[in-house]
Order: sequence, then C-alpha cells, then structure tokens
Amino acid sequence: MELQLPRGTRDFPPSDSILRDEVVQTMVEVFERYGFNPLETPILERWEILSAKYAGGEEILKETYKLTDQGGRELGLRYDLTTPLARFIGMNPNVKRPFKRYHIGPVYRDGPIKHGRYREFYQCDVDTVGVHSPMADAELIWIALDVFQQLDFDVEIRVNHRELLKDLARAVGVPEELTDTGILSIDKLEKIGADAVRKELGDKGFSNGPADRWLSAMDVDGTNADILEALQSTVPDSEAHQELTEMLGYLPDDGRVRLLPSLARGLGYYTGAIFEVFSHDPEFDGAVAAGGRWDEMIGDFLGSDQPYPASGISFGLEPITELIKGQPEGTAAQRETVVDVYVVPIALKQEGLEITQRLRGAGLNADLDLVGRGVSDNLKFANAYGIPNVVIVGPKELEQDKVTLRDMNSGDEQLLSLDEAIDRLTANHAQ
Amino acid sequence: MELQLPRGTRDFPPSDSILRDEVVQTMVEVFERYGFNPLETPILERWEILSAKYAGGEEILKETYKLTDQGGRELGLRYDLTTPLARFIGMNPNVKRPFKRYHIGPVYRDGPIKHGRYREFYQCDVDTVGVHSPMADAELIWIALDVFQQLDFDVEIRVNHRELLKDLARAVGVPEELTDTGILSIDKLEKIGADAVRKELGDKGFSNGPADRWLSAMDVDGTNADILEALQSTVPDSEAHQELTEMLGYLPDDGRVRLLPSLARGLGYYTGAIFEVFSHDPEFDGAVAAGGRWDEMIGDFLGSDQPYPASGISFGLEPITELIKGQPEGTAAQRETVVDVYVVPIALKQEGLEITQRLRGAGLNADLDLVGRGVSDNLKFANAYGIPNVVIVGPKELEQDKVTLRDMNSGDEQLLSLDEAIDRLTANHAQ
Repeated sequence: MELQLPRGTRDFPPSDSILRDEVVQTMVEVFERYGFNPLETPILERWEILSAKYAGGEEILKETYKLTDQGGRELGLRYDLTTPLARFIGMNPNVKRPFKRYHIGPVYRDGPIKHGRYREFYQCDVDTVGVHSPMADAELIWIALDVFQQLDFDVEIRVNHRELLKDLARAVGVPEELTDTGILSIDKLEKIGADAVRKELGDKGFSNGPADRWLSAMDVDGTNADILEALQSTVPDSEAHQELTEMLGYLPDDGRVRLLPSLARGLGYYTGAIFEVFSHDPEFDGAVAAGGRWDEMIGDFLGSDQPYPASGISFGLEPITELIKGQPEGTAAQRETVVDVYVVPIALKQEGLEITQRLRGAGLNADLDLVGRGVSDNLKFANAYGIPNVVIVGPKELEQDKVTLRDMNSGDEQLLSLDEAIDRLTANHAQ
Repeated sequence: MELQLPRGTRDFPPSDSILRDEVVQTMVEVFERYGFNPLETPILERWEILSAKYAGGEEILKETYKLTDQGGRELGLRYDLTTPLARFIGMNPNVKRPFKRYHIGPVYRDGPIKHGRYREFYQCDVDTVGVHSPMADAELIWIALDVFQQLDFDVEIRVNHRELLKDLARAVGVPEELTDTGILSIDKLEKIGADAVRKELGDKGFSNGPADRWLSAMDVDGTNADILEALQSTVPDSEAHQELTEMLGYLPDDGRVRLLPSLARGLGYYTGAIFEVFSHDPEFDGAVAAGGRWDEMIGDFLGSDQPYPASGISFGLEPITELIKGQPEGTAAQRETVVDVYVVPIALKQEGLEITQRLRGAGLNADLDLVGRGVSDNLKFANAYGIPNVVIVGPKELEQDKVTLRDMNSGDEQLLSLDEAIDRLTANHAQ
C-alpha cells in the first residue's frame, strides 16, 4: 500500500494547525463582535441543489466532486458556502432578517492544481441577508479592517459599485452590448495600465470616443471625496454613486479604504458595492479577502418573488496563513506546540503526575514524560518540540519541597517552590 | 427544485452552532491543557487507505462514501479519525514520539439512519502514539473527568483491561476457541445480569464449570482496590492486572472511575486498558465517550516491524450536545445569538454606528439596526433573537450626551453615559 494523500489535499501537522486555529479564532472574535452568528451546514449537499440555476454555475459544476448515497441519491461536496446559505434561507423562511451569519469551513473543487490552489480549502464567509443598506456593506469592510489589524497585516481595501461602472458606461456612450465585455477590460486598469486597456477595448470593437471618455471619467487622483466629486459630474443622478457615498461616509478616511472606479470583480453575481482586500505588508499578489453585495442570487435560486438582498465578504485562510508563515521569525512566531511546560520526573512518576496536574489546574498546558527517559533525553525532546519551559522534579528537589524550573530559551534554571514556578509560568502564559 | 438536505445530515442554525462551538472549545482547552496538539487531515482519503487491511474493516467500508477525482483516482470520505492518524504517522516517520494529538471533525457513514445516528457526525479524538504506559491511559481518563466536569455532567467511567478478561478466561478453564465469543456475552453482564449471560454462554457451548467460574471471578463488590485484590487471587501473575493497578493508582479514588471486570468493548482493535464514560446526570443510555489502548493497529496498518503503541479516547459531540439541549432551562442555557447588545439609533445612523463601534472596541458583541425600523419593532427583533441588552440613541439622548440602556429581561431602562453603559455591559459580559 502506498501512503498518499488525495491530490490537492494536505495534512496540517500541529505547527500548521495551531496557526490556522489562531487565525480562525481571530476571525471568529471579530465576526461575533460585529453581531454575526455561526451557521454550520453539511459538507455534502444534494446534486440538485449544487447544480441549480443561479447556484455556482457550470464552470464550478465541472469541478464538483459527485457521489451517490446508499439510496442512489446524487450528492456532491459543496464548492462554496454561498449556495448552502441560499438553501438554508429557503428551508428556513421564518428566520428573522437581517440574518447575519458567518461560516468557516472546507469547500471542494476538483480542478487543476496550481501553486497555492488546493482541492480542499477553507472559506471564511460573513454575510448579511435581508437588507439592502450601505451600512451593511460598510460593516463588512470594517470587519476586514479589524481582522487584518488583529493579524498585523497592512492592507488596502479597494471598493467600488458594480452599477456605477455601468452608469459611467451609459453616460459616456458605451453601446449596451459592449458594456459587460468592456467591464472585464476596465477591471484590469490597475494592473496593466490605461494604454493596454484602451488597446484591449479597441480590439473588442470599442470606438475611440466612448473608450477614452470611459477611461478618463475614471482617471481621477485624490481622496475618495475628490473621486466621488469628479464622478458625480459624469453621473449626476446615479443611485450607485449615492450608495457608495453613504457607505464611504461610514468608513475611516485614512487611505486604508480606497475608491477605485475601475474595480469590477469579474461578472459574477455582485449587484452593488464590491470590495477587495490587498495586503502590502506582508506583500501578496492577489486578494486576501473579497466580497460585495449580491442582492439577486438567493431570490433567483429560490425562484422567489420576494427579494433577498445580501452582502458578504470571504476571507482566504490559505493565503493568510501562507503569508504569516512567510514572515520573518518574531513577526508572527509560529509555534510547534501548545505546550507551555514539560514535566520531567526523575524516577518519581506519581509525584510527576501530581505536579503536572497542579500546573494544569492553574490553566497551563502541561505535558509529562510518559516514557521514563533520562533528563538530557527529555530536554532534547522538549527542545525538538519548542516547549518553552521544563519543570524537573527529582529526589533532590522533592527533599526541599521544590522543583527546578528551566527556561529552554536561555537555559537558566531556578530552584523554586511549585507555587512560585506556577506564578512565573502563568505570568508568561498570559503575555 | 426541492430544497432538501442529504439524508442523515443536518444544518446547525446559530443556536445549535453556538452550543456545539462551546462544547468543542471546552474540549480543546482540556485537550491542550494535557499537552495534546491539534492535527487536521483531509476529509477525503484515498480509497486504498480507507480499505486497507487493519483499517476500518469490512462493515465500515460498506458504509463508506466513495467517489473519484478528475484523474480517475478512487477516493472516499473518512469514516473515522483513526485511519487518517495511522496514515499520517506512516507518512511522517520522523514525528517525535510520544506524539499526542487531538482531532475534532466530521466523519461520514452512509449507513441506516436510526434515532440519534447521522451520516455526517463529529468525532473528537485524543490519542497518544508511541508509548505503552498506564500513565498515558490514565491521562485520557483524567481528560474525560475534566471535560465532563467543565460541562457539568455527572459521569462514571468504567474501566477494564482487554487482556485481563482473557487471563481470567484462561485461569478458569474457558476453552480458547470460546474465549472471543464468550467475551461478547460477558460484555453484557452489567446490562442483562448474570443469569442471562450464563444462559447465553450455555447456548454458545460453554459447560457450566468455566462459565460459572468466569462469572464468579468477576462478581466482586467493593472499591477498585477490593476488586483488584479479589481478581489477583484468580490471576496472580497477570501483566494486565499489574497495568490496571498502576493506571488506577494515577486516578482519583472517589467512585467516578470504576473497575468493571466484565467490560469488553466488543472485539475491536483494543489491546489493553479500555474505558467507557457514562452520564448519570443528565442521564443517557449509552456512552458519551469511550476509548482504550490500541497498540497493534498502526503497525499492522503500516506493515511495519516497528511497534506503534497507542491509546486514545473519543468524545461524541452529538450525544453531548443533545443531552445539554435536553436539560431544563437555566442548567445550561442555550443561546440564540452571540450578540450582547443591540443598538437602536432613532434617525441617527452615523451616531448609531459610532456608538456601536465603541461597544465593539470594548470587546462586546454588538449589533446595530440596519433597516431603520421603529423602536418597538427593533425591540421585538432583539427579543426574538434573545439579545439581552438594547442601547437606544435618539435626539433626546444625544442632547444630553447619553444613551438609554434597556435590560431586555427585566424591561428596565436607564439613561447613562456611553462609558457607564459600557462598564455595565462588560461587567455582565465577563460573567
């Protein structure tokens, strides 16, 4: 038998799991602080749901793992957390709205494996269902600001409004049939520059006038207020412009949130405000979180006449943890173990256990030599796992009713009463 | 399209997810306090691994969801967390041992659905790999004691040793070919009584002598020490007896841990100490956690000459949360929401947001009216979600630089400065 993982999946040994758990914990705390509640749905969904119109779409469906249960029913592994949310809303029509939920869990895409792409990966989604409000959109951007501040990332959040792009296109005379394809080129403005976009628009059949006017309407420097003012002269009656103005009014005006009129986020299901979070430090060539307003998908999916406005943001656990792992040591030290202290009882198993239980009772994560190794082998073991402290208890210590506390970083050893040792260790633990 | 879940799977709406998260968090804290580190493995495994000899076994394999990836490779959804652990150990031969890991996650069994049985359910496993030591077994029982103490369950942990059952059988003259089938009957002693077991043994071909002697060797009342002493007269040289004696010596002697010489836990892969945790209050007809020593499975699975002793315990998240939900209110109050306080700004959106952000900055989980409802509709909303506090801010409050803090349980309202309100709320939050 060959020991192998399925392609595109990974094990997370303790050092990785500890880091992932910490990032998830940070997100959960921020999500809950903003009044979002946890919702968990199964990893298995009926194929009928996953393949429904307005759900993930044909491209995603090609990459969806399919299986059948004993009863011959067709099932699939969820490819995102949005379709299950829409299904949940449909099956629970009495849920009070706005319904604010977060959901952190694995999703599955049986697609090509490139650098940094996996077939099992985590999505961390936060969505507000049931209200069309720029304040709801602003909350999601606040969440991103808070999460990345907690994680010590220096980020810029680029925002725009899907309808503003269209309003601008109309105002400068872009033919309606060219708007969608044009938006896909405009979306690249930040990356490839105006000349390249102009050329691409020309190749797509744009005449120079509309293309130039569209690009120049978006070519504004300055603060978000400056940009809003300049745009207003082109689209004086745009509702999207009003919504963006209101949303930005709820957000900090210190450069972290930047209105980028060319931002489009593809042609997906977004209907209003859109946002993408980029990390400057640590630097990353891609978004670490992204989202926007998607007012139509749930109603369309459910075939409902009732509107189900919604807005959400999704954080990428994989890029975030990879970035933290890539940082120089000390910035975000990665731990090999949760253990605070390792107890080495020299031929005193019962006393060793009692001391370990005392340490645990004080809230410390304590491990104990279970093998009966010698002191130097035990120190090697503690060192290999990066355990920061060792408590040694042998006949010499026991005689004086003390323990030896060893700081594994400095190598310093001190003879202390167990209470003194616990005081020191809990002080360090709390830091 | 019919909105349905796959059979045997469930959504966990906020009230359930909050409870599950709390139970998981309790377990994680205890597991880490005992020096266990998190390990996460994929939900997908290669079929070759899942179906390997010494892995889950044929019965489980029949209930295993099978699928193929794009490359035509056969995969399955994991049916437990033990086979993935064995695979991980095999793929990471340099992991320092003892390797103490916990793993909490969903597993899948496409089997018949009975009351309380699901096709997607959580296992919460704690295992120590790489050491054969009664101290390692004792740690797992301590963990169970601590977890259920934290959860306010009154439990009894029944322990025994697989080899002790066999040693006793040998000592009383049970024919070797009848030992395994006899053990399955003996295992029922606690449930169906000695007469019924004697009859079953007779039906299986036991002559009266060995059956009576086997049963009477186990028929000892008294403390664990009394039972150990009585057993020793039957099996004076049993290594299993020595191990049990050592293990019980590391454990509290207050009735919570009870030596039950008839306990067998089926014929699974256990090789040494075995334990089952039963809950008296809340009362439950089945184990809420169980485990034991399984020294041979990993080595056999890997086809290795090297020994891989291991010992573990598995907690059932489903029975535990169901039991908590079944308790009278107040015992373990189930929350509908994580939100501590709901802010109702009367026509003052910007001020409402600022106040909400201040509450969030103070560590409170704060939500805000995003809809612009009237006060009474907002109070209804807060009430429906069980949010304990509401902060109302209208022109009247703003004029005095105050807010109205309403206790949703009592209906009391007080006009306070925001700082005073935050002090009260954080004091409640900390409780």
